[in-house]
Amino acid sequence: MPRFRIIIEYAGGDFCGWQRQANAPSIQQALEDAITAFTGETVEVVGAGRTDTGVHALAQVAHFALETERFDADKAMKAINFHLRPAPIVIRHAMEAAPDFHARFSARNRSYLYRILNRPGPAALDRGRVWHVPQELDAAAMHDAAQTLIGKHDFTTFRAKHCQARSAEKTLDGLTVSRVGEEIHLNTHARSFLHHQVRNITGTLKLVGEGKWTRRDVEQALAARDRAAGGPTAPPDGLYLVSVGY
Amino acid sequence: MPRFRIIIEYAGGDFCGWQRQANAPSIQQALEDAITAFTGETVEVVGAGRTDTGVHALAQVAHFALETERFDADKAMKAINFHLRPAPIVIRHAMEAAPDFHARFSARNRSYLYRILNRPGPAALDRGRVWHVPQELDAAAMHDAAQTLIGKHDFTTFRAKHCQARSAEKTLDGLTVSRVGEEIHLNTHARSFLHHQVRNITGTLKLVGEGKWTRRDVEQALAARDRAAGGPTAPPDGLYLVSVGY
Repeated sequence: MPRFRIIIEYAGGDFCGWQRQANAPSIQQALEDAITAFTGETVEVVGAGRTDTGVHALAQVAHFALETERFDADKAMKAINFHLRPAPIVIRHAMEAAPDFHARFSARNRSYLYRILNRPGPAALDRGRVWHVPQELDAAAMHDAAQTLIGKHDFTTFRAKHCQARSAEKTLDGLTVSRVGEEIHLNTHARSFLHHQVRNITGTLKLVGEGKWTRRDVEQALAARDRAAGGPTAPPDGLYLVSVGY
Repeated sequence: MPRFRIIIEYAGGDFCGWQRQANAPSIQQALEDAITAFTGETVEVVGAGRTDTGVHALAQVAHFALETERFDADKAMKAINFHLRPAPIVIRHAMEAAPDFHARFSARNRSYLYRILNRPGPAALDRGRVWHVPQELDAAAMHDAAQTLIGKHDFTTFRAKHCQARSAEKTLDGLTVSRVGEEIHLNTHARSFLHHQVRNITGTLKLVGEGKWTRRDVEQALAARDRAAGGPTAPPDGLYLVSVGY
């Protein structure tokens, strides 16, 4: 029973997120349907990160198993990509995986990028791919305040109300904010994240970038362990799952 | 009679190009309609470069004149951007211009970028924004061959049949080809370009990247002064008007 590991790029704007839902198009469903169209088999595709509605991925990782031995990884990739069209979902790489490889449980870290377009005019080329913030943000102040979140903390302040994780305690391994031309890029990595954690952190750091909040305000918000103490949730448009490490 | 200079970003995929046409949506028309909606005046918007169907711009430059003195440049930009929605066209910057400023005739140079996505899997996030070439290209060989095109030449080999320029003689000031991650970027600048010149050069250099043509073949194609001697025309998807210098 061959097992495949695939690396997937997608634009999340037209989907309800990674996870299969009864009445809305998901990335998982689109992949499963394409694999069925190619193999005739019903499969479950398991992803490393369950990205939300509208969130994109540069390199999501997933696995699935087939009953038959007929296909090599390269051929499978091309055939699945053919059946995925015209959905904006593409398998970038496919390889055979060890029988115990599990995209979600074997993952050791996840990296996300959040892109803010920080200029007076909104996005034309990158519409739906960035969060447009017209007023100029202080990236250095955002980066400085972000450092208070590094390490092991109770992240209740930055956790969605309906988050299903057993504990709000997480270890944030890296969080940098920098200006890249007209954009502000927030790069972060950790073993795993709570639901909406990156978007809630981004919405909070934006307040720092505007000069409304200080580094101390972020520290106090974290310590409050109360979602109401944090800033607003940034929109999904600017969020990208960048990589998953094993 | 105030004159404005505007810098415009757009995604060209849904348009017949910059120039107004009777029965197809153009960038020029969309801008003129938005300015009319805002001012009540009928205007002509004159662009620096008449980009083709499907070609994008990071910073096209244009000018237009209004009868009335009512609007400052910033207010005009915001109002026109409001009326442009939901078209993927955005004014990035607007300023008052000298009475003799002409976006096209005052322009001293134009820069273009051509993006090739060079990986096995097609584009998901950048669909319609890159040319997907799955087989690996040799960017260094492409760059080396490109240098034979620098300088003043008769570019008939790289000129569209229906090009309206009086002469095929142009001076190419810069042309570099480099690998940027999974992409090959072709950057070029000149005082002006012939119709399809960048796309025909790109289609020809791709043959070099594949190993089908040598630097010498490019040199001979140029010397032939015959469109039939050149490579195919690259698709518009990967082409961006990057900047216009005055």
